[in-house]
Amino acid sequence: MGMVGGGQGAFIGAIHRIAAQMDNEIELVCGAFSSDPERSLESGKALYLDPARCYGSYQEMFHREKELPADKRMDMVTIVTPNHLHFPVARLALESGFHVMSDKPATLTLKEALELAALVKQSSLLYGLSHTYTGYPMVKEAKSRIAAGALGKIKKVVVEYPQGWLAAKENEQSKQASWRLDPAQSGISCCIGDIGVHAANLAEYITGLEITALSASLTTNVEDRLLDDDGTVLLRFNNNAHGVLLASQISVGEENNLRIRVYGERASLDWSQLEPNSLLMKFPDQASQLIRSGVGELAQATITSLRTPAGHPEGYLEAFANLYRGFAYRLRSRLETDNTGGHLLEETNALDVPGIYEAVRGMAFIENVVAASQSELKWHPFSLVPNEELAIIPQGAKHA
Amino acid sequence: MGMVGGGQGAFIGAIHRIAAQMDNEIELVCGAFSSDPERSLESGKALYLDPARCYGSYQEMFHREKELPADKRMDMVTIVTPNHLHFPVARLALESGFHVMSDKPATLTLKEALELAALVKQSSLLYGLSHTYTGYPMVKEAKSRIAAGALGKIKKVVVEYPQGWLAAKENEQSKQASWRLDPAQSGISCCIGDIGVHAANLAEYITGLEITALSASLTTNVEDRLLDDDGTVLLRFNNNAHGVLLASQISVGEENNLRIRVYGERASLDWSQLEPNSLLMKFPDQASQLIRSGVGELAQATITSLRTPAGHPEGYLEAFANLYRGFAYRLRSRLETDNTGGHLLEETNALDVPGIYEAVRGMAFIENVVAASQSELKWHPFSLVPNEELAIIPQGAKHA
Amino acid sequence: MGMVGGGQGAFIGAIHRIAAQMDNEIELVCGAFSSDPERSLESGKALYLDPARCYGSYQEMFHREKELPADKRMDMVTIVTPNHLHFPVARLALESGFHVMSDKPATLTLKEALELAALVKQSSLLYGLSHTYTGYPMVKEAKSRIAAGALGKIKKVVVEYPQGWLAAKENEQSKQASWRLDPAQSGISCCIGDIGVHAANLAEYITGLEITALSASLTTNVEDRLLDDDGTVLLRFNNNAHGVLLASQISVGEENNLRIRVYGERASLDWSQLEPNSLLMKFPDQASQLIRSGVGELAQATITSLRTPAGHPEGYLEAFANLYRGFAYRLRSRLETDNTGGHLLEETNALDVPGIYEAVRGMAFIENVVAASQSELKWHPFSLVPNEELAIIPQGAKHA
Amino acid sequence: MGMVGGGQGAFIGAIHRIAAQMDNEIELVCGAFSSDPERSLESGKALYLDPARCYGSYQEMFHREKELPADKRMDMVTIVTPNHLHFPVARLALESGFHVMSDKPATLTLKEALELAALVKQSSLLYGLSHTYTGYPMVKEAKSRIAAGALGKIKKVVVEYPQGWLAAKENEQSKQASWRLDPAQSGISCCIGDIGVHAANLAEYITGLEITALSASLTTNVEDRLLDDDGTVLLRFNNNAHGVLLASQISVGEENNLRIRVYGERASLDWSQLEPNSLLMKFPDQASQLIRSGVGELAQATITSLRTPAGHPEGYLEAFANLYRGFAYRLRSRLETDNTGGHLLEETNALDVPGIYEAVRGMAFIENVVAASQSELKWHPFSLVPNEELAIIPQGAKHA
Repeated sequence: MGMVGGGQGAFIGAIHRIAAQMDNEIELVCGAFSSDPERSLESGKALYLDPARCYGSYQEMFHREKELPADKRMDMVTIVTPNHLHFPVARLALESGFHVMSDKPATLTLKEALELAALVKQSSLLYGLSHTYTGYPMVKEAKSRIAAGALGKIKKVVVEYPQGWLAAKENEQSKQASWRLDPAQSGISCCIGDIGVHAANLAEYITGLEITALSASLTTNVEDRLLDDDGTVLLRFNNNAHGVLLASQISVGEENNLRIRVYGERASLDWSQLEPNSLLMKFPDQASQLIRSGVGELAQATITSLRTPAGHPEGYLEAFANLYRGFAYRLRSRLETDNTGGHLLEETNALDVPGIYEAVRGMAFIENVVAASQSELKWHPFSLVPNEELAIIPQGAKHA
Repeated sequence: MGMVGGGQGAFIGAIHRIAAQMDNEIELVCGAFSSDPERSLESGKALYLDPARCYGSYQEMFHREKELPADKRMDMVTIVTPNHLHFPVARLALESGFHVMSDKPATLTLKEALELAALVKQSSLLYGLSHTYTGYPMVKEAKSRIAAGALGKIKKVVVEYPQGWLAAKENEQSKQASWRLDPAQSGISCCIGDIGVHAANLAEYITGLEITALSASLTTNVEDRLLDDDGTVLLRFNNNAHGVLLASQISVGEENNLRIRVYGERASLDWSQLEPNSLLMKFPDQASQLIRSGVGELAQATITSLRTPAGHPEGYLEAFANLYRGFAYRLRSRLETDNTGGHLLEETNALDVPGIYEAVRGMAFIENVVAASQSELKWHPFSLVPNEELAIIPQGAKHA
Repeated sequence: MGMVGGGQGAFIGAIHRIAAQMDNEIELVCGAFSSDPERSLESGKALYLDPARCYGSYQEMFHREKELPADKRMDMVTIVTPNHLHFPVARLALESGFHVMSDKPATLTLKEALELAALVKQSSLLYGLSHTYTGYPMVKEAKSRIAAGALGKIKKVVVEYPQGWLAAKENEQSKQASWRLDPAQSGISCCIGDIGVHAANLAEYITGLEITALSASLTTNVEDRLLDDDGTVLLRFNNNAHGVLLASQISVGEENNLRIRVYGERASLDWSQLEPNSLLMKFPDQASQLIRSGVGELAQATITSLRTPAGHPEGYLEAFANLYRGFAYRLRSRLETDNTGGHLLEETNALDVPGIYEAVRGMAFIENVVAASQSELKWHPFSLVPNEELAIIPQGAKHA
Repeated sequence: MGMVGGGQGAFIGAIHRIAAQMDNEIELVCGAFSSDPERSLESGKALYLDPARCYGSYQEMFHREKELPADKRMDMVTIVTPNHLHFPVARLALESGFHVMSDKPATLTLKEALELAALVKQSSLLYGLSHTYTGYPMVKEAKSRIAAGALGKIKKVVVEYPQGWLAAKENEQSKQASWRLDPAQSGISCCIGDIGVHAANLAEYITGLEITALSASLTTNVEDRLLDDDGTVLLRFNNNAHGVLLASQISVGEENNLRIRVYGERASLDWSQLEPNSLLMKFPDQASQLIRSGVGELAQATITSLRTPAGHPEGYLEAFANLYRGFAYRLRSRLETDNTGGHLLEETNALDVPGIYEAVRGMAFIENVVAASQSELKWHPFSLVPNEELAIIPQGAKHA
């Protein structure tokens, strides 16, 4: 695996490296860690890489790696740059014949996402996207139970993702904040684009449903801010269930509190990322079940996703590693002649990896929500057509 | 105290009797427990009342009690009938010179509520309304902290009230369900009228803010049902804070999970009715505080609202009794010449009682939400003018 | 009901009055609230009692009430004095023909408890003791499930009761602390006598087992203190199960955190007084059950003990009121000719009331633990013979 | 790094490999994964190792690796064999000049541990022991706060470690159970040796105190079992604080619920392994603090131990990796000339690694507890002298 971005001091690069290498299936062999060749080299050396494979640009990396013998060169590239580079890097990687694992979001616009989707299809290379929360074992348990009909028909979904770190103006100066609040690097939305889209993805992943209509209200709660930092979206799904999505970056004191509740006709499920090894299942008229990772009868996908026995908490890095493990299995099944991995993949969602489908739906979600928020009408159909009209205006202005 | 309604088998009457008598300040002395005189007498005898004061109708009770000497007759009446009778009973009670404590909602329509408000004003009698959740000590703690500025400017409110008991069609046959789903007895709304209005009241009570605009989407999730059983309302407050209110009676497995989160500039508060003796306060960048009833420095209102020391859980009945205790103090301060109770009341919200102001705002909230839900426009100002146009149509129909 | 003790400013008297009167089955009609007749009268008037029945001493109260006609005089007396008076007041009450409900502990010594037991037996009057925690609905649920065999054979019991309020020397000056730490008023033990005995009672109540042997280590953790303020007791039960009892009054920050875990061959139960409406049931290899008061199939005893539907928290006062309600039913079944209450009592533990059996075992537990702690040997049989040899020596001294 | 044990199917080997390699500081280069050379080779190949370095025995591995050039050969060995081999493998590794990271327990007896300690001292090689729970960030936070005096003088420690997996006789057949219950492979104790010793280590680590005396009661709760499966130990520490240690493998439904509560004069701390990212700090008379990993001011050791920002749960594998990371830093500070790592180590417990001191105290704890349990006397001093007299007799027998 080669890495683009993630040089020294970059947070997300280190996370990807731990996740990618956790299961001993993927090895980091090269990188273009920074657009500054000096810094890229330093970063690579700190990772004990061969200095010759620490490149000064992703263009150089793709070019040079392509020329190496097949058994020496990297198979895949992972993209951990700022958002606005995800698309051009992924495009060139695919054109150069490398499989791609991209940090979320896939692109800056829906239009780019659709272009990327066409490219992926044409290339028949693998494309993975870090909707990390789908990698949690108890998320897979929830998905499995719903798919097996344990809840009956889904009636309502409440998914919320409150954070508090953008509540204060001062925090805008941080490295994490500054690019997220800059439309040039982050696109049309901050809160929905950064975290709301994770919540929407999780809702669709767990329920197996698709959003078909929505009503949205985004707000900007700090002076001079250009993008939304809070939003509520009402949802309608393709089975006529309805839902509510709350996303916020100004909810003071909230860490990263992604939580989803799914209510069906026969039972409901409640999962929270801050206590990821538990899943609460409630019933109309019997005691609730507190389902714990590793305890009792669990879905095959859940069991496969766990690395430790009951009572040994697993967390975010393990969830992330499940995405990479899935990617590695898929890749290996292509690289190896006996191709046994592929068979396994047919039967289980343990090793599924969010991909180009999720990339397109995610960018569409963002554009639909921003458009709906700017409309005076309540409800809007979920559209996969790029919206060229979207203005970047502070969302809170109209209610001020 | 006399009681109207609450005969044998009626659930809410017993709750009111426990709450009213908990602090030894109010004594039940008579009642019109049922429109069937025989049943009223039986109910009264089971409560060890004088059979002569177990009346066959509320009209008879008011008439006969009025004729008793001042030191013998009841001072106040508590109304625990089905909803559609709240208004006529309260009206006649006030006209007969009796103070009124009414089960919520005050009336069936905003128009009636405004009429009742005029009557209360004119009578200078006391009127109390059972928005019970404001009686919890930690709700008073939250209100006190916010009033003292501990959160800074309020930015966002999330209040939710999920229940699951109306999820299944079969449950409609129960006594509790049948009248709530019947527009003739329950009015224009089921879910918002029954529980959404509690959530709105709690949000206004704790924050001290008023709702000024809203966007709403109500749905009906069971076939042939005439009223809403689920709804989401986006809120805008008079300080420009925004909020989300979720109410549901079809969230399978949820008991009575009223919860409110208030996010300010400096801190946030989180309170849940199912664990009412705790209040979580979070900060941007320091450890959260787990505030417990009876532990550490608490507001005077909180302390006054508690009957036991730390570590002895108090619950719903004690919260309810706080309303009656407040009512009794207010009443006593009028009845007694030294009037000392009144002085205390000026200084604390410990003994506050929701009254006719809350009655009017509650009915307005219901009508505004139903109107907004039926509109294709997103946002609507909060209006105190009765809406005569509201149709009773299943809320889910338009999205089906 | 008449009350001895509980004058103005006394905490526990008010608690008993709320509990006794909650269900409208018991009415406070007289009292000897203080040994100061003036203060007793003031206290009674504040409770709206007939001044003629506010007595200056319990002796006077028993004497005068006995002379009233049967339908006017009190039936029962509740004793809420400091500990050292519980026995003499109860003795005279029984001798005067009044039923007795006593605050815990029943007496100062096991010898007195045995004497009281003989008196109760001889009198055929009712005697109740406020082991309040047995009144919680979910404690009754736990007892019912264990009795029905849901756990299989009990193997282990862990019961703990940590408090922190006696950690600091300064707190000794409080009214609550000073008599508890004074052997003359409190007896041979502080921590075990005050709260350890509740934990032991709860363990025997829930499991239906009896303690047969114990090993104990009590300590005193504040200078110049005469009695224990912390202790651990290892237990052996009559089915050969073993257990651990932890009691502490110097565990800083703990409120009143009584908790019991019972492990059987097939399942285990976990209940905590601070969240009394939940009961957690765990299994060897399936999801845990979160049993909530009012939800799903519960034992008849549990249902009878609840006053509100699911989702309306009940607490300490309601648990306490369950004891009084049970006492009232038992009393009524004797007073009324049709005696229907008695029939109900045969079938359920909903209305059970701790009595003279628990009084004797409680005092024996205290004396056995103190003796075992003073011994250098590890294990001691549980004895019902009074131990005259017990010295009051600071328990921590030997290990200092 | 080379590995001894941990071949295909072995659970703990995989855990060690993930932990060791998580931070990209340690690379697995060789192994003697099984005593069956064929199986060792298969295991190594599945890990993408050079087949030439997949050895058939640990003796062969040490012999052959020693002969490789210094920059090619392994620096350290990790031992993940069954318990009875830990000592001989560690001894030969040290004698062959390799640093050692050993799975816990270090040896089978205290005598062996003392012998190993002498060897480590003499060799000046590094020796690490997997008391994994000390690697949790919030454990380090607790240790740091106590060391800084935030609790005042420690008065009481309650540490508990309940599991349920050995409750049923049937489970004895499992691979995990069979050797743990076999004295030949597991030594003088099962429950105390396997988990009690973790609890004792955690108590000494967090408090910085040493156990000086103890009283113990071990029991065996399943027929025909030779070793203890449950035990309670009363503790006395070198500052005269007292404590209770509960360990159990027959507590049905408990996963791996290590929890410690430390009570000081001024505050207390509560940490539970099942929710490892939270630490609750309680005070005598103010709101509790809910300290979360990544939020607010934390000790340097805590921050260094975390890999993700607030709200991204870390778990058991990350805690384990902290031990390996500490080991790697220590090792690197010896291998590199500039030796900068060593400086860092002086200032922080972030990178501390349990070592031979903990190995000796752990084995002493086990022997002291077993001896104390077999004694009729209550209290025993904690001794570092090996006890040759210990009989392996079922602990429950004497109370049966």
